[in-house]
Amino acid sequence: MILTLLIHCPDAPGIISAVTGFFHSQGGNIVYLDQHVDKQAGVFFMRLQAEFARDQYGDDTEGSFLKSLEEDFTSTCARQFGMDWTIHREASKTRMAIFVSKYNHCLYDLLGRYETGELHTEIPFILSNHDDCRPIAEQFGIPYYHIPVNKENKAEAEARQLSLLKEHDIDLVVLARYMQIIGPGLIGEFTNKIINIHHSFLPAFAGAKPYHAAFRRGVKIIGATSHYVTEDLDEGPIIAQDVSPVSHSHSIPDFIAKGRDLEKIVLARAVLLHLQHKTLVYDNRTVVFA
Amino acid sequence: MILTLLIHCPDAPGIISAVTGFFHSQGGNIVYLDQHVDKQAGVFFMRLQAEFARDQYGDDTEGSFLKSLEEDFTSTCARQFGMDWTIHREASKTRMAIFVSKYNHCLYDLLGRYETGELHTEIPFILSNHDDCRPIAEQFGIPYYHIPVNKENKAEAEARQLSLLKEHDIDLVVLARYMQIIGPGLIGEFTNKIINIHHSFLPAFAGAKPYHAAFRRGVKIIGATSHYVTEDLDEGPIIAQDVSPVSHSHSIPDFIAKGRDLEKIVLARAVLLHLQHKTLVYDNRTVVFA
Amino acid sequence: MILTLLIHCPDAPGIISAVTGFFHSQGGNIVYLDQHVDKQAGVFFMRLQAEFARDQYGDDTEGSFLKSLEEDFTSTCARQFGMDWTIHREASKTRMAIFVSKYNHCLYDLLGRYETGELHTEIPFILSNHDDCRPIAEQFGIPYYHIPVNKENKAEAEARQLSLLKEHDIDLVVLARYMQIIGPGLIGEFTNKIINIHHSFLPAFAGAKPYHAAFRRGVKIIGATSHYVTEDLDEGPIIAQDVSPVSHSHSIPDFIAKGRDLEKIVLARAVLLHLQHKTLVYDNRTVVFA
Amino acid sequence: MILTLLIHCPDAPGIISAVTGFFHSQGGNIVYLDQHVDKQAGVFFMRLQAEFARDQYGDDTEGSFLKSLEEDFTSTCARQFGMDWTIHREASKTRMAIFVSKYNHCLYDLLGRYETGELHTEIPFILSNHDDCRPIAEQFGIPYYHIPVNKENKAEAEARQLSLLKEHDIDLVVLARYMQIIGPGLIGEFTNKIINIHHSFLPAFAGAKPYHAAFRRGVKIIGATSHYVTEDLDEGPIIAQDVSPVSHSHSIPDFIAKGRDLEKIVLARAVLLHLQHKTLVYDNRTVVFA
Repeated sequence: MILTLLIHCPDAPGIISAVTGFFHSQGGNIVYLDQHVDKQAGVFFMRLQAEFARDQYGDDTEGSFLKSLEEDFTSTCARQFGMDWTIHREASKTRMAIFVSKYNHCLYDLLGRYETGELHTEIPFILSNHDDCRPIAEQFGIPYYHIPVNKENKAEAEARQLSLLKEHDIDLVVLARYMQIIGPGLIGEFTNKIINIHHSFLPAFAGAKPYHAAFRRGVKIIGATSHYVTEDLDEGPIIAQDVSPVSHSHSIPDFIAKGRDLEKIVLARAVLLHLQHKTLVYDNRTVVFA
Repeated sequence: MILTLLIHCPDAPGIISAVTGFFHSQGGNIVYLDQHVDKQAGVFFMRLQAEFARDQYGDDTEGSFLKSLEEDFTSTCARQFGMDWTIHREASKTRMAIFVSKYNHCLYDLLGRYETGELHTEIPFILSNHDDCRPIAEQFGIPYYHIPVNKENKAEAEARQLSLLKEHDIDLVVLARYMQIIGPGLIGEFTNKIINIHHSFLPAFAGAKPYHAAFRRGVKIIGATSHYVTEDLDEGPIIAQDVSPVSHSHSIPDFIAKGRDLEKIVLARAVLLHLQHKTLVYDNRTVVFA
Repeated sequence: MILTLLIHCPDAPGIISAVTGFFHSQGGNIVYLDQHVDKQAGVFFMRLQAEFARDQYGDDTEGSFLKSLEEDFTSTCARQFGMDWTIHREASKTRMAIFVSKYNHCLYDLLGRYETGELHTEIPFILSNHDDCRPIAEQFGIPYYHIPVNKENKAEAEARQLSLLKEHDIDLVVLARYMQIIGPGLIGEFTNKIINIHHSFLPAFAGAKPYHAAFRRGVKIIGATSHYVTEDLDEGPIIAQDVSPVSHSHSIPDFIAKGRDLEKIVLARAVLLHLQHKTLVYDNRTVVFA
Repeated sequence: MILTLLIHCPDAPGIISAVTGFFHSQGGNIVYLDQHVDKQAGVFFMRLQAEFARDQYGDDTEGSFLKSLEEDFTSTCARQFGMDWTIHREASKTRMAIFVSKYNHCLYDLLGRYETGELHTEIPFILSNHDDCRPIAEQFGIPYYHIPVNKENKAEAEARQLSLLKEHDIDLVVLARYMQIIGPGLIGEFTNKIINIHHSFLPAFAGAKPYHAAFRRGVKIIGATSHYVTEDLDEGPIIAQDVSPVSHSHSIPDFIAKGRDLEKIVLARAVLLHLQHKTLVYDNRTVVFA
């Protein structure tokens, strides 16, 4: 069994020594450790993976062993250093809902990866404000919910979204070119659990029609940005970015076509980092472990 | 003798045929041709290089041959299609002045390239608002003018700059991390002849301290942008951009250190494109020929 | 109607002028022209697009207009300069067969693009030496042929492949991680019409297991290469390449996972360039027009 | 005082806990820790930085404090786990000799960085098999030794090189486009202390004239590789690589010009990593800490 520990807490001397000592004393072999200190903010971040052999939990199940380890950690390291922390078991799969509008390249890409086994996840449903992508959902055998959104029904639509997410026990919402603003209620319930792809190199060209804006400005490189969604549109913590060169010879449709490849790769990269518990959010920035 | 022709004019059928026919009829062999049409604006751009053998100008000097060719071009193609055009002889070197403040990595890089023969240019002088880089100028044997700039003497400083540029017959001003705003008089006289390097991926983080702003925003990629200087700060036509990945583990000084390499490479790339007559400006964007 | 002309021929003065003059005289408006001269080899390459308005073919159909234009071109420019040339009509779709073995990420990616309308093509069938990808073909409603290949049946397998390709009138074969060597008969019939993706930065790590070899060598960047297939394994003309940074912290499975994204993007890029008639092959290299 | 510890040793449970405990008990605050396990080889690698406040060494000098700490480490962690290790003090500057032949772009770049203060190093001398770069050395006020190398004098030349390196107490030799093969005697004395820049994306195009070979192969990307020098030419452990896109439109001189920028950036990156004690060599590969 491999456990993944994510920590952030006020920086102090002795944290690494204490945590590695703790896992060592519990019989775990540390197979990964990376840490980061934000010196300005005085905050310590760590990701640690420890491996436990079958005979180390004795007669216990994995579950009861983990529970006891968590209790010990709480009363020792976590208390001593005032830690925010989570421990993840390799076995448990994240349950991920995909929201999409009409552009389907990110959806196809995520579903292809899902089928291929690249993503350690379950996809209980796809949700859209349009009915266009239903055939794709059917092609991949995934339930599809069509929840139209307009000026009048925003609150109601959000309520339906929230109830679906809870009913299906969703841990992560991926906005795969979902072109509606996510309501504050949903953001509040899924803090740092909603990943969006924006089709520009943020903070350049936030908002609508970024490729048109990039074309007008005459940039020589376009980009895509995946980020956690916060109430400030396109302002959330950035997880991954990538870019592609363009020239005067590219039209806006060329930008859009090149951008599709960027968008799907960057979104998938961010989703994968999240699923592997490699991201921590602090002060509207991310720590992304290698 | 190789001649380089740059054209822009209203788009119309038959331009390429007319221009290539013209050079063919003059005995030139076309060794390069690239063209671009901005369909929205209805503007045609072309760069063409034609080679003329020694015996083609007969008893004439290169200069008189060129003059006669230019007259013929003016009265035929140029008139017919209403062209803005220039013809450049390979032999003539651009005269380039470098403006710098205190950061000297771009200056060192340009001077190293100059010594190595990478740049087809002469550098009559280096100008600075500080005296710090004087030893570098001396090291490379290039005159150095120290023109301090402050609130009170802006107009006077600009007048001295302009007079130096004219006295030395300068064709191109390169701002190699020159941290003062260029006055409108100088911009007016050197339209599309002043190249700046900005240490961000424009339009993101225009203005002062872009690395600090990029750090605060938590971007995963930093960039640099070289552009022609216009009266709107950091808003001029972009010539070249490049980027470098960063992570949470990089501090602001790390951004600055990584950025230095970007800045010097991107600035040199833009300068080289300009010196090779590969850039055309239209509608605050550049056409950059390959 | 837009026509795309691809030419290569011995370099000579006056080609551009003659060709543009020809299209101008036929009433076409040249909307794209790019050319290249391989000076060492003395070969001229050109891609040109010309637009013809509806009233320019008079009572003719597009087909008869094109036929007449081709005849005129043959007897003028083509004869004068000894050209190899093709003219492509925008309307006609390339018919593309996909060969695949077990890895399915490139297949999913191509089919996603096909559904999205990114590829101007028809896909009459998918062919594999295994039966594993059949469900994907069914998911997308495309016929699937399972032709096992082993030491004994190579000739027979190749014969069946060839007969399928001819029966379905295939113009382009895409090897989307097809792990068998293509027979010389098939290569002979489809010269510069078979595109392969190799999972390394060729010529580094040709042959089997390139990610394992890259890991052993300790490279800091991995790559993928798409190329036309020739009889020399992994030695054909390169169409597109891309790379991705790696570090000591990446295992071979990490290389493979990162490589999948490279492979699918690079293969799709090459396929798209071919479908848009932007590639020319000469001397085992490609000219790839912008 | 900041100390940097580099370790490699057989992998075993408890190393991180023991080492961090050791530094904690000595009063150090761990400000950086990164580790890597090569699972196939069963080897553990670690880089750790610990900060000690002035009052922690009491009446001792830094030197005597460090000596005592090293003795303690030797008799505890190092012995227990069979470690290869080094501890570096921030204060001590690496003494770096530069070898160069005729191409001077890497030399200019390193000297520019040296002047700017980018490199934490001293440069006691520049050595060359030609006299061409002497003016550059003089320009920067650095001693220059001209040691010609030919078939007859190889052993003697190597002896003179070695004696200069020892006399000047050199820790690192940088081959900044030095076009002679380094003798085995020198390599033996400076194992993992000689950094070369090769002008290709190794292992592609090892040996002479890589840009010519890359051009003939028709690659779409060129690269540069910095590596530690071993007796196998161009086969040593890779420290850094980078690449740049090329196209059919680039001639061999274009490859060479683009390559210069790659070479100088990649060489400087490797030198900087070495000077910051961020590299470890194992099994002809490098671990490069962030």
